[in-house]
Amino acid sequence: MELFEKTLDSKNIFDGRVLHIVLDEVELPDGKKSKREVVNHPGGVAVAALDDSNNVLFVKQFRYPYKEVVLELPAGKLEKGSSPLENGKRELLEETGVIGYSYISLGQIYPSPGYTSEIIHLYACKIKSQNQQALDEGEFLNVEKIPLSKAVEMVLNNQIPDAKTQIAVLKTDALLRSGKI
Amino acid sequence: MELFEKTLDSKNIFDGRVLHIVLDEVELPDGKKSKREVVNHPGGVAVAALDDSNNVLFVKQFRYPYKEVVLELPAGKLEKGSSPLENGKRELLEETGVIGYSYISLGQIYPSPGYTSEIIHLYACKIKSQNQQALDEGEFLNVEKIPLSKAVEMVLNNQIPDAKTQIAVLKTDALLRSGKI
Repeated sequence: MELFEKTLDSKNIFDGRVLHIVLDEVELPDGKKSKREVVNHPGGVAVAALDDSNNVLFVKQFRYPYKEVVLELPAGKLEKGSSPLENGKRELLEETGVIGYSYISLGQIYPSPGYTSEIIHLYACKIKSQNQQALDEGEFLNVEKIPLSKAVEMVLNNQIPDAKTQIAVLKTDALLRSGKI
Repeated sequence: MELFEKTLDSKNIFDGRVLHIVLDEVELPDGKKSKREVVNHPGGVAVAALDDSNNVLFVKQFRYPYKEVVLELPAGKLEKGSSPLENGKRELLEETGVIGYSYISLGQIYPSPGYTSEIIHLYACKIKSQNQQALDEGEFLNVEKIPLSKAVEMVLNNQIPDAKTQIAVLKTDALLRSGKI
């Protein structure tokens, strides 16, 4: 079956600090017309940083859409003019004070392909040194260290809802078990 | 560190068919004010349906935000008045013609907790019978069967970007290996 959808019109709904919402009119594969509501997002990055005993650094922060504190890997939005990896190194340093080495890509994820254009780049690294956090203004989070094996169990027992964190934890574990980290 | 953010004001930006965008003013833990751009979303569900040889059913559809065809598990938005599991059974039937049994929860995921309230419920099941697709108007997708072991490899090799699909494939594999499916 032919699947392509052709853009007929694009209407700007909202230009926020993070989110850019458009309402497009498209032509479906059968020639009929439909609407697509899209979040255009600059993209993100997350890093699983391991110490020598295979503990992983996590951050806990209040996530306003859920009105709850969520356990996640250090992460952030991509800033223009630097690569996903550079953004990952910066976010890890800002949120946890850690400088990493031996970075390895864990791929990219599409968090919710029905409506957002966001791509989250995932990395694992080893921890070289840890200093003070250097949080952005208005950023509040607590850092926690959890053994990778315990984090894997938490993912499998549905105790870590964040998607990028689940994926990076399971992939880091798979790579470690196969000797690739 | 105290992490809670208090809502001071909420402004409706867009009420779409799927997305509801609000721009809220919040009080941060340090008493300063900030803005939060939030996508309020009805939630979603995805199902990993296995046949007797541990092949999994996938769907390929054009995902407008990425302007590309994406390989995913059968999935859809939650409709009011029925449970996540009922929604999962309906989406699996509509998109692939499959009736499943022995449903097991694979937990919930937060696809991108910085800006969307979406929760995606994940399930695995066995395939009881397969008939014709019964797609919604304006829905176009192709069904594909892939062995679970190959799907796991594709996830680890970064060939399946969709987050819910990566997680459900890895968790289904872990549950099968531990004899829980």
